[in-house]
Amino acid sequence: MKKILVLGAGKSSSYLIRYLLDHSGFHKWQVTVADFSGELALEKTKNHPNSRAIAFNIKDKAARESEISAADIVISLLPPTLHILAAKDCVKFGKNMVTASYANEAIKALDRRARKAGIIILNECGLDPGIDHLSAMQLLNRIRWEGGKILSFKSYCGGLIAPEFDNNPWHYKFTWNPRNVVLAGQNTARYLEDGAYRFIPPSRIFSQTELLYAGKYGSFEAYANRDSLDYIVPYGLEHTPTILRGTLRSPGYCKAWDHLVKLGLTDDSFIIPHSEKLTYRQLVQSFLPSTEEDTGQALAAFLGTTTQLDDFKKIKWLGLLDETLHGLENATPAMILQKLLEEKWKLQKGELDMIIMHHEIKYELGGKEHRLLSSLKVTGEDETYTAMAKTVGLPMAIAAKLILAGKVAHKGVQLPIYSDLYDPMLDELKDLGIRFDEKEE
Amino acid sequence: MKKILVLGAGKSSSYLIRYLLDHSGFHKWQVTVADFSGELALEKTKNHPNSRAIAFNIKDKAARESEISAADIVISLLPPTLHILAAKDCVKFGKNMVTASYANEAIKALDRRARKAGIIILNECGLDPGIDHLSAMQLLNRIRWEGGKILSFKSYCGGLIAPEFDNNPWHYKFTWNPRNVVLAGQNTARYLEDGAYRFIPPSRIFSQTELLYAGKYGSFEAYANRDSLDYIVPYGLEHTPTILRGTLRSPGYCKAWDHLVKLGLTDDSFIIPHSEKLTYRQLVQSFLPSTEEDTGQALAAFLGTTTQLDDFKKIKWLGLLDETLHGLENATPAMILQKLLEEKWKLQKGELDMIIMHHEIKYELGGKEHRLLSSLKVTGEDETYTAMAKTVGLPMAIAAKLILAGKVAHKGVQLPIYSDLYDPMLDELKDLGIRFDEKEE
Repeated sequence: MKKILVLGAGKSSSYLIRYLLDHSGFHKWQVTVADFSGELALEKTKNHPNSRAIAFNIKDKAARESEISAADIVISLLPPTLHILAAKDCVKFGKNMVTASYANEAIKALDRRARKAGIIILNECGLDPGIDHLSAMQLLNRIRWEGGKILSFKSYCGGLIAPEFDNNPWHYKFTWNPRNVVLAGQNTARYLEDGAYRFIPPSRIFSQTELLYAGKYGSFEAYANRDSLDYIVPYGLEHTPTILRGTLRSPGYCKAWDHLVKLGLTDDSFIIPHSEKLTYRQLVQSFLPSTEEDTGQALAAFLGTTTQLDDFKKIKWLGLLDETLHGLENATPAMILQKLLEEKWKLQKGELDMIIMHHEIKYELGGKEHRLLSSLKVTGEDETYTAMAKTVGLPMAIAAKLILAGKVAHKGVQLPIYSDLYDPMLDELKDLGIRFDEKEE
Repeated sequence: MKKILVLGAGKSSSYLIRYLLDHSGFHKWQVTVADFSGELALEKTKNHPNSRAIAFNIKDKAARESEISAADIVISLLPPTLHILAAKDCVKFGKNMVTASYANEAIKALDRRARKAGIIILNECGLDPGIDHLSAMQLLNRIRWEGGKILSFKSYCGGLIAPEFDNNPWHYKFTWNPRNVVLAGQNTARYLEDGAYRFIPPSRIFSQTELLYAGKYGSFEAYANRDSLDYIVPYGLEHTPTILRGTLRSPGYCKAWDHLVKLGLTDDSFIIPHSEKLTYRQLVQSFLPSTEEDTGQALAAFLGTTTQLDDFKKIKWLGLLDETLHGLENATPAMILQKLLEEKWKLQKGELDMIIMHHEIKYELGGKEHRLLSSLKVTGEDETYTAMAKTVGLPMAIAAKLILAGKVAHKGVQLPIYSDLYDPMLDELKDLGIRFDEKEE
């Protein structure tokens, strides 16, 4: 039996673990699910005969080495900063590894050692990053194969709420790690436009947005996502003047979130002394330049809006003007905001989420300019088997299957940008209901 | 002979080294000045018979251990992140240490070991932090000794250009580490006002300023400096509702600097690929939301000003709209900005700098509210023996002398907030021309 070790049994693990267990009989897999909470792991394995659910602390060296050395492949859903602990052991014991996270510098630095160990550490193999790479590379290589010259590449993705369950003024609920949502946009976004660099500092990421019309899926707001320049070389776009990756939200979200950023509530860099004694309203007051008027009026004036407008109503709806104690000790502003949002933006029982991905590629072929649109919409099954968990988890599961079957020749620290990965992965994802619509103009 | 090891022979070392050498005969000191550049060290020691000038790399463990173990006290002018290397060896070899830098977490963590080793690691013993602590604590303790109750404590300091040599539109020139000036205000400023926390995120530090009237020394702009809450306990201000530390600039500076922050030019978090190929103008363009108009017009519109106004003229005067190559490879935006500012804001031969410090303390005594103003102005001697070097260096030199003479009983990681430090230090500083003016209202 081949042994698969899944590290983490949180929000995005449900489909991944179900897929692995569903296929475990046929492929003769033993699936170990390891989480800090053994109960959470057990909830996901449901005592499947080919499963083991264990309580596990990645920082426990002995446990980590024992589990990783016994595995054939490790799928890590750990928080991004912790992957490196598993990755180093994977190199040491010659085990392959798959994650859905951005490859950070520490992971990238393992490339040579991973090649030497004859293993692949496959990163960015979830939704975004993940399915975006698979689908973009398939499209780009098809266009190039036909002789086309890529003029512009734009790619957008968002984890949203299905319209039927969209019942709050933000039109947003959490379907993945809330901390990542709260801390989004804290680095300068970078992209390329008409051959020139474009930089957007954190203070402007949520105000410098564009409106995206994604055909039958509707209209969205897009903010620039991280460093698009990172993908020039992997995507082979060295001669393409426009390259942008964006994140989608419902229209109106970004303006209101920008208010929270401007106010300072997304700040995670300092702990507020005696934070547990602050009410939400006092927290807001501490960031306002003026202490004189009514807090709501002062806030509206500071934000350049009025208490009657939608952007202000979103803030108010969160309860940020309430004299309620959050009770968090040693908390940063971002931690307090996250606690409040987790209450307000909870995906309730029976509610479905939705993910939207949209590529827009302009290219020249036969002397004419073409525009290729490729869009994906996936709706969740329920509040556990979400569209987010499906689109993050299944690519990792399929990639792991391909690697275990010896069908992936690449070694070292890699992204899923090669046809031996993206072709079979996209084929199987299509069978599983993750299917792009294409439109050529 | 007592051996004094001075680490670093840069901008702020001139007075310190001169003081130590001037007093070396009387006190029987041997002064070793160690710098990465042996020449720079020699420039400062000028072959004084009681001096040694050496080329030295703090990261060279053998050299570091050999020098520190041979010294009686170490005065570190290293960049703040490097003090810890010297501090650990000081603990190991039982040597006292003095710095002018903020005590960071790594240094603070040495407290117990330093006490055990019977040494003092005296931080924040320059100008700001430094003379501010000495003078504030002397004033506060005098008021408390008389039975006064402190209602408000505000303290400001700025390193500026003497009015006679103020010949650029920013009214500013570099007199200390340019990098620190460029990266100022990149953390949320924190203070206390009327018993409530006040937080100012980095994006607003240079717009949320106050105008300070410092009596005969003129008017200045003050922006909130770092974390004033850190000084509540050391200053004994647990029951004082208003506590603020601010940094002074000439009026108009902050608004123009705020433009650079908003634009993104102070960003030090990412390296621009092929940065050496960018002109200053292209760098500015990459941060502008609009690419359509003339860059100057687009910049003015983005900043909410016009090309005719002073704030815009300051930006233009720097050359940020010029098609000039800066030539820096692997540079962050902040590194490019710093290079430009080092050319434009250079203190030229014969030009004098000026430092201003100003405390404003409100207190209640005998049923009446009092307001005590205490101000300091120091003008430099020339472009090397600056007011900045004098006020940063002399406190360290005097503190080192007191410690070597066994007159400081405190051990561990400390600030200069005790009378056995501030009384003799302020007395001697007064003799050396660093003298506060007091005014009571």
